[in-house]
Amino acid sequence: MRQLCIATMFALGCLCTGQASAQSALMKQAQGLFKPIPTTAPALPGNAATPAKQELGKMLYFDTRLSESHALSCNSCHMIGMGGVDLQETSLGHRWQHGGRNAPTVYNAVFEVAQFWDGRAKDLEAQAGGPLVNPVEMDTTPEHVIEQLKGIPGYTAAFAKAFPGVADPLTFDNVRKAIAVFEATLITPNAAFDRYLKGSEEALDANQKAGLELFIGKGCVACHNGINVGGSMYAAFGVIERPGAEILPPDDKGRFAVTKTASDAYVFRAASLRNVALTPPYFHSGKVWDLRQAVAIMGNSQLGADLNDGEVDRITDFLGSLTGDQPQVMLPILPPSVATTPRPKP
Amino acid sequence: MRQLCIATMFALGCLCTGQASAQSALMKQAQGLFKPIPTTAPALPGNAATPAKQELGKMLYFDTRLSESHALSCNSCHMIGMGGVDLQETSLGHRWQHGGRNAPTVYNAVFEVAQFWDGRAKDLEAQAGGPLVNPVEMDTTPEHVIEQLKGIPGYTAAFAKAFPGVADPLTFDNVRKAIAVFEATLITPNAAFDRYLKGSEEALDANQKAGLELFIGKGCVACHNGINVGGSMYAAFGVIERPGAEILPPDDKGRFAVTKTASDAYVFRAASLRNVALTPPYFHSGKVWDLRQAVAIMGNSQLGADLNDGEVDRITDFLGSLTGDQPQVMLPILPPSVATTPRPKP
Repeated sequence: MRQLCIATMFALGCLCTGQASAQSALMKQAQGLFKPIPTTAPALPGNAATPAKQELGKMLYFDTRLSESHALSCNSCHMIGMGGVDLQETSLGHRWQHGGRNAPTVYNAVFEVAQFWDGRAKDLEAQAGGPLVNPVEMDTTPEHVIEQLKGIPGYTAAFAKAFPGVADPLTFDNVRKAIAVFEATLITPNAAFDRYLKGSEEALDANQKAGLELFIGKGCVACHNGINVGGSMYAAFGVIERPGAEILPPDDKGRFAVTKTASDAYVFRAASLRNVALTPPYFHSGKVWDLRQAVAIMGNSQLGADLNDGEVDRITDFLGSLTGDQPQVMLPILPPSVATTPRPKP
Repeated sequence: MRQLCIATMFALGCLCTGQASAQSALMKQAQGLFKPIPTTAPALPGNAATPAKQELGKMLYFDTRLSESHALSCNSCHMIGMGGVDLQETSLGHRWQHGGRNAPTVYNAVFEVAQFWDGRAKDLEAQAGGPLVNPVEMDTTPEHVIEQLKGIPGYTAAFAKAFPGVADPLTFDNVRKAIAVFEATLITPNAAFDRYLKGSEEALDANQKAGLELFIGKGCVACHNGINVGGSMYAAFGVIERPGAEILPPDDKGRFAVTKTASDAYVFRAASLRNVALTPPYFHSGKVWDLRQAVAIMGNSQLGADLNDGEVDRITDFLGSLTGDQPQVMLPILPPSVATTPRPKP
């Protein structure tokens, strides 16, 4: 009896150790491929964050008077409290025009290799000016943005505080700098996956771990890696098999428009998968609303892998572990317009 | 010398007392005509406020998925942080259509005699359903609102928590009740004028007091009185002299559309003047952007008083004292859409 007990205990011991090792191996592998989201906003090179600059950036982010119509703000398409997106196929902009591509989330955008689906802006600061002057988005001009803001007395003081010791702080460059500094605060730490990366085995359940194993084993990780589980490189949509025109419209050649290099046709920035469960619809075309379907399409088009339903489910379970703490943002009190403030042109 | 001193002191004493009495008389008169905004949200009859209901109401207020397009929310036209308005002549709604009248502020709306410029909704709860189903605003239906919200799993729990012990809490009535309870929190206490009404002589400066005296003496107070300095009664726009068609468009007969009574032609709810400095443009037509001009027009059309520039300035100074503490609102984290959630129809 005593011998049997010892034998059983030994066997159980092996089993436990074996399982623990297997788990640790997966965790170790994951720790080599991914990085947790930090709990504080990262610094931006050449654009030091101060509370005054963050507050100004927040005001500008929510101020519809930055658009020609005074009806649209950064937050119209990148909604804080709604995954940092607008849940639209493509966004509705000036005079109800549709944008060309699905609006990517502003959350964790600071960690992307470059901004926009085609990477045409090198960082948040460069990005922030884009939608302002895009005729189908906010449809204004750098000159009018400055005229508008100079026409709202409260902004003079807010820019002076955010950019102290500068003769003329209210410039388009500083508009972009302040917005970027605010956007850098929009990060989502403490996802289950982040807790796992920091050593907590219990943070992921068995299905999510199985999904993570598939995510690595099937090769998703080739493009979706690093701190944002994506967003760090470019890839052709349809490496193995080009999806149909309803998902990959032939007239949008992606990064080709930026580089004019033939091999960049249908190349896009690999999407970050952080908070992906919160940000349908998917892909640059915004044509796929079901995350499971998006996973299956990626399996076919990028990996040549005909994932079965169970595999799709497990990978989707894993993706659910990438939802982090959503930013808590107090709405700014915007400086009032006065009689001489430039008026909207709706 | 001693006698002179005493005489001087006596004279000064009289002067001070005299001045104090004059100030007190104005304050006393004001206290009889107006009431300060309370510091806590008022209770709504038959719609008890709870933190869960306020939080749900806040979610619904910001959730664009309540509109047919998923691009518009209550906050699109009644922006928190921007005086509770959109600073547009008339609001931009579904498919960039213009609303019929200028959007009134949501701030302190709970204190109005009725809602909308023509008073067609008796309270916030009745109002909340209006823009949802208006084809030029959010363009949805009560049935679709419920279908939409039932398609977002997080709302099931939020309604159950806000309306406990009810078999089917997710109803259109409860949508309106929750929004009303949140809107009742959007009050702006502690304006300089409120501090004055509570006994602080220093709260208003000499110009503002002169403006208050004119405001009472010239008769503005006949319509603009009570807690909201307006919003408590109806009046014809143009009691004395009808303004031109550019300010009072002939095809909008105001309250006549509600009551079908001839004497209600061009009758509107007297606007609340709370935070009026923050809410251009003015009047139901939204045609006047300069508060000074609005004051002058009111003098002519309502009082037959040709106010001189100095009088207009003083009254405008007084109106500036009606700007209260603006609501501090933390953006809600909205429950995510899932694959089966009804999609936008932009």
